[in-house]
Amino acid sequence: MSCEHDHDMATASSVVPKVKLFGAPYSTCTSRVIMCLMEKQVDYDLQVVDIAKTQDHKKPEFLAMQPFGMIPVLQDKDIQVFESRAIVRYIARKHEGHGTPLYGTSEKDRAMVEQWLEVEAQNYNPAIAPAVWHLVHAPLFGQQGDPAIAATSLQKLEKVLDVYEGVLSKSKYLAGDFFSLADLSHIPFTHYLINDGGKGEIYDKRPHVKAWWTSISTRPTWKKHLSNAFPGRTFP
Amino acid sequence: MSCEHDHDMATASSVVPKVKLFGAPYSTCTSRVIMCLMEKQVDYDLQVVDIAKTQDHKKPEFLAMQPFGMIPVLQDKDIQVFESRAIVRYIARKHEGHGTPLYGTSEKDRAMVEQWLEVEAQNYNPAIAPAVWHLVHAPLFGQQGDPAIAATSLQKLEKVLDVYEGVLSKSKYLAGDFFSLADLSHIPFTHYLINDGGKGEIYDKRPHVKAWWTSISTRPTWKKHLSNAFPGRTFP
Repeated sequence: MSCEHDHDMATASSVVPKVKLFGAPYSTCTSRVIMCLMEKQVDYDLQVVDIAKTQDHKKPEFLAMQPFGMIPVLQDKDIQVFESRAIVRYIARKHEGHGTPLYGTSEKDRAMVEQWLEVEAQNYNPAIAPAVWHLVHAPLFGQQGDPAIAATSLQKLEKVLDVYEGVLSKSKYLAGDFFSLADLSHIPFTHYLINDGGKGEIYDKRPHVKAWWTSISTRPTWKKHLSNAFPGRTFP
Repeated sequence: MSCEHDHDMATASSVVPKVKLFGAPYSTCTSRVIMCLMEKQVDYDLQVVDIAKTQDHKKPEFLAMQPFGMIPVLQDKDIQVFESRAIVRYIARKHEGHGTPLYGTSEKDRAMVEQWLEVEAQNYNPAIAPAVWHLVHAPLFGQQGDPAIAATSLQKLEKVLDVYEGVLSKSKYLAGDFFSLADLSHIPFTHYLINDGGKGEIYDKRPHVKAWWTSISTRPTWKKHLSNAFPGRTFP
């Protein structure tokens, strides 16, 4: 990974321009894309957008690129895409024959990856996101977390994890016996809930979910991203 | 469209087995898939799952197919997929050269379709869904809608529509000058909010949004779906 700026690209030896990723290394949605780029071995420049102090994502020049004022945005020559799950689909499709086969190897694999990527977006994310906000991120943004909302959120998450436990008792990963875009998409929020929110026990008490989390969170790509994003800090 | 049962398929003249769609014709997520099947000219059998009276989607035989107990589910020979947006991606990809080109015609088109399909799922749907539930669907399920939640939901929706107005002032549809999976995905919830919730004015007062809604809601496929789902009722 590198965090070079525009002028560095002109002096780079490679003639293939790197893709440009506008985001923040600690952001969950940016992390989803960074992990995908790493798995597909795509070189990129991270252009840091400060969403905490200077609120760069709400400034007119950024809104011209992302009208909802959210990160990340990917720029790949003349193609500019926002929404992290649209970006990872774009990367996985464009680099289909390169790096980790994040869509699997058959039409059926691909259908299952899309299914579980949607489950992450529609079931898992709405359950986990409020817990992570109220337990972990609100204080960082100078707001007070609400323990009652976090508790309700965790109850919903446990129901989703009950379904996952059943699915993961039949296959190693969500879409089958291969690591995919669907597993990858779960990592950033789960990382915060376990390692900063202290809620690892709801994963640990489900043996197949626990084995899945151990497998996906110890991938070299994710460990490398964490060491870049949080230098000096170690995670289990 | 047909709503035949298994035994009818054996006598059908076509040797290509129809895909089987488990869902309810009045359900928003089922409607998303039906419209996609119609645009791609894919013949299908709708196997009605009663989510209102007999709660078929919560019965063990259905949960074995869809562990979250939600509709729809698509069965296409040995491939079985749930989550409506995963299903429409599967259909659009499998039948890429047939019917309406719902992913556009270039890699850039496709990236834009994925982007706006995600915006629908992550921004538009969370804003509109509570309004439709509390204004339209709750009473049908014997529950009382909460006008305050509906009002908050509509406020969020108006902010999303402000962004859409800007985007649709530059292109006829969300992903460009072609009707795509992204536009299609917006139709079912918007239909209920306008035609049963009486909130058409928030679309009408934004001229580009209004023109877009008129264009997508008057497609022959959607009109045909409505006349199948609500026989005898007319919509503007």
